[in-house]
Amino acid sequence: MNNDRIQEILDLMEEARLDYFLISDPQSIAYCTGYYNDPHERMFVFMVSKHGNHTLFMNDLFYLEHDLGVNIVWHKDGQDAIQTIVNEMHFPGRIGIDKNWASHFLLDLMKKLPNAKYINASPCVDLVRMKKDLQEQVLMIESSKINDAVMEEIIPFIQEGVSEKQLAKKLDELFFNHHSTCYGAIVAFGKNAADPHHENDDTLLRKGNCVLIDMGCVYKGYCSDMTRTFFYGGIREDEMKVYETVKKANEAAEAMIKPGVKLSDIDKCARKVISDESYGQYFTHRLGHFIGRDVHEYGDVSSVNDMEVEEGMIFSIEPGVYLEGDFGVRVEDLVMVTQDGCQVLNSFTKDIYII
Amino acid sequence: MNNDRIQEILDLMEEARLDYFLISDPQSIAYCTGYYNDPHERMFVFMVSKHGNHTLFMNDLFYLEHDLGVNIVWHKDGQDAIQTIVNEMHFPGRIGIDKNWASHFLLDLMKKLPNAKYINASPCVDLVRMKKDLQEQVLMIESSKINDAVMEEIIPFIQEGVSEKQLAKKLDELFFNHHSTCYGAIVAFGKNAADPHHENDDTLLRKGNCVLIDMGCVYKGYCSDMTRTFFYGGIREDEMKVYETVKKANEAAEAMIKPGVKLSDIDKCARKVISDESYGQYFTHRLGHFIGRDVHEYGDVSSVNDMEVEEGMIFSIEPGVYLEGDFGVRVEDLVMVTQDGCQVLNSFTKDIYII
Repeated sequence: MNNDRIQEILDLMEEARLDYFLISDPQSIAYCTGYYNDPHERMFVFMVSKHGNHTLFMNDLFYLEHDLGVNIVWHKDGQDAIQTIVNEMHFPGRIGIDKNWASHFLLDLMKKLPNAKYINASPCVDLVRMKKDLQEQVLMIESSKINDAVMEEIIPFIQEGVSEKQLAKKLDELFFNHHSTCYGAIVAFGKNAADPHHENDDTLLRKGNCVLIDMGCVYKGYCSDMTRTFFYGGIREDEMKVYETVKKANEAAEAMIKPGVKLSDIDKCARKVISDESYGQYFTHRLGHFIGRDVHEYGDVSSVNDMEVEEGMIFSIEPGVYLEGDFGVRVEDLVMVTQDGCQVLNSFTKDIYII
Repeated sequence: MNNDRIQEILDLMEEARLDYFLISDPQSIAYCTGYYNDPHERMFVFMVSKHGNHTLFMNDLFYLEHDLGVNIVWHKDGQDAIQTIVNEMHFPGRIGIDKNWASHFLLDLMKKLPNAKYINASPCVDLVRMKKDLQEQVLMIESSKINDAVMEEIIPFIQEGVSEKQLAKKLDELFFNHHSTCYGAIVAFGKNAADPHHENDDTLLRKGNCVLIDMGCVYKGYCSDMTRTFFYGGIREDEMKVYETVKKANEAAEAMIKPGVKLSDIDKCARKVISDESYGQYFTHRLGHFIGRDVHEYGDVSSVNDMEVEEGMIFSIEPGVYLEGDFGVRVEDLVMVTQDGCQVLNSFTKDIYII
């Protein structure tokens, strides 16, 4: 059990005047207890309690390798799992619920405790997870180092006639060799790169195509995420202009990141660089997302998020310009906020790269 | 929109005295509307209404290729999606909720309509999905035919020194060649077969191993599922006895299936065959599960399910005997209940098969 993290959760619970908070997101449970498990349809809940009796509720089919230092209440298939929670709630006044808990559990709990108040309390853990502690920072740095290494290693395989799917498969292998798991890369050639969410297909690489690679891995539970756009066999002048604009937007955004800056202002900064070159309408998504145990975590870098940057936050900066039917460019790094600025977690070059 | 299916849902809603039923399981929505979509964190709900105003609520980021013949209310990212549902509920008395709907949606709805009653109403669609209509039966039969064909095609690859992972990868390819998608096969050699949920690893096939293959695919949205256990390079006498017992249990269960029989009695029948040969303690799971759009659907063939068999139901019959540290045998078919018996959807031989 990680007492520092739980204390931060308790502080937010106090602000929300919660007696109990039933955490059901498996990654959030792992964040608190050190134990990850995908329970499928079974009930799996970590209760954080104002009264100190934090408890993990789990099915006895799940297997624990070592003591977690946390109170555990087991149930069996066929038993009334929700009742095991009710039994541990001595003062059920205001109960926090995690956002994605299956409704049938909540309805069952409400039936048993009809007088309690139920509140979506996910921010009480999601806000804590936004800021990475030292242990997490180390793993995030490692995960991004692997990402940089694999980007170097894939270059020799970017050859005429290779397909997007073949390159993606090779990326899987390369990440595997680094003891990490690729969670799915986007490989897009030429006009396919103009779709920010392109699904890799059998398109073959031809001279004159851009090559957009958006990739990342999970290493010891923590994710990396980076995009680079290469040019195969040469670059046109208009492609060069778009590329330099996107790169400039990426660098301008990264340069302004420090505690106290608004996330929305970072988005605005990158967007302005792109709009000033009249590509604004082709930058069709938010600038970035938070990342950690999940690739996409609570919080984003967008025009509507006025939250201020804090030390320890890790998020992506990924401006792009997408010209339908022609080509697309995206340049993405992860950044980690430091005391007075930020550390860019990716070191792979952002200069124009012609293969 | 499939009016017959929706009428059956309405009949069950009437029994449960529901005014509205908010279906959120994407497969159940597809079952009703013909449109499948994985909405991730976005709201995606099909409301079945006692008052006839059935409505699909969806984000305008989702793409419709053709008219579904159903009323659609669109929302955008950032808009109050739950309010769009509230706007269409003219008489919100008793509202059915689908079991796995994310709790934050439900809590939001409850805040807006605090006087309504909320009921876990998933059985209103799950019970209908248990019985396959003709259109579904055709696809289930096709899906199982592909499964039979791939089981034939994998045989030549069962060779000394091949690994479990390599065989599983080959299965992927073979299913792909049949325009279907393998949803993940279990390939277990020798003592690995004694774990019913074995994860394929790098174990290499050696003479004297049993080879358990539990596999299936999704074909046009419908799943198949079959297990066969082979013997590589010969079979021992005790293996032969276990195999014949499991096969006999499988066949005895299948022989008794017809409308009116209790699912629990089918489980008992298979279990008795195995217990009579004193392997009862090694048959550690239920006899079968329902299947259709999902590999595991609502309903099972187990000692505690006294529901009666009805025409059109499709489920697995998969007895097994697992001898830890030694070997395991499972023989699984899908069966479809007919007017006066059942059709076994798999035709691959169940005789002892030595490779």
